[in-house]
Amino acid sequence: MRAWVFGDDVDTDAMVPGRYMKLGIEEIVRHCLESVDPGFASSVKPSDIVVGGRNFGTGSSREQAPEALKYLGVAALVAESFAGLFYRNAFNLGLPAIVCAQAKRIRAGDLLKIDFEGRIENLTTGETLSCERIPPHLLQLVRDGGLLAQLEKRLRCGTISS
Amino acid sequence: MRAWVFGDDVDTDAMVPGRYMKLGIEEIVRHCLESVDPGFASSVKPSDIVVGGRNFGTGSSREQAPEALKYLGVAALVAESFAGLFYRNAFNLGLPAIVCAQAKRIRAGDLLKIDFEGRIENLTTGETLSCERIPPHLLQLVRDGGLLAQLEKRLRCGTISS
Repeated sequence: MRAWVFGDDVDTDAMVPGRYMKLGIEEIVRHCLESVDPGFASSVKPSDIVVGGRNFGTGSSREQAPEALKYLGVAALVAESFAGLFYRNAFNLGLPAIVCAQAKRIRAGDLLKIDFEGRIENLTTGETLSCERIPPHLLQLVRDGGLLAQLEKRLRCGTISS
Repeated sequence: MRAWVFGDDVDTDAMVPGRYMKLGIEEIVRHCLESVDPGFASSVKPSDIVVGGRNFGTGSSREQAPEALKYLGVAALVAESFAGLFYRNAFNLGLPAIVCAQAKRIRAGDLLKIDFEGRIENLTTGETLSCERIPPHLLQLVRDGGLLAQLEKRLRCGTISS
């Protein structure tokens, strides 16, 4: 629930640097975001939240970018805006991305509580930030643990049929 | 293939104005983007291309926004960046959204040729613009006509099974 705060236009290459892409995910994530915050990968804790500015996740189409954040235990992403493909990949992996016009009001280390219904409570400052609600079908995708898990569940339950 | 050019932060409410949402799609699309270009809905032709600036498709989560553009025959969207949810919905409907850092070089009425492999040819000016490649799985989604059509096809072919 603790915020890690980054700026505008943080790209997927910063999340999963190209020179480590041939290595496995365990090695790749050790370098996640090191070019903008060398301490991030070693210090981020499960349930922490990554906060960005505008166009978070821009750049190449590497699906490993949200995967790396998820692998490190990041519970949610908050940003003024997300790059479209990164946003898509994040939800497909079950990692919620929340658009918040007031994201820049969050400081590094703030304790956040996100309700997914359009509000972020900053428990450190006492402030409530309004953000876009996640549509129900995407929230369900997060609850199901991503697209593959959701498809498996639906096929098992017979709610998708030919 | 003719470009309709819009600015930054064009939101989904401009594409499908709230006050017409209770009407059917045929009526809604008559008002598509009228607040920014009153002539758009009546003059756009099948295969035309809509070009935006930054954060195209921001705002509410209305899935009808890309649906309206598709209904009007728009073949592709090009923008400096797209709002994440709009980008997701566009591809799910089979409408390709192409991120092009040089989108502002395109003028209204320019004839464009898009190869989906990272290039846009401007046949009017002779210029070639570089853009992000659409990842293969999203290109397939466009070729299949969107997510529902793709799922139906895969289920029919047995490439998804429980």
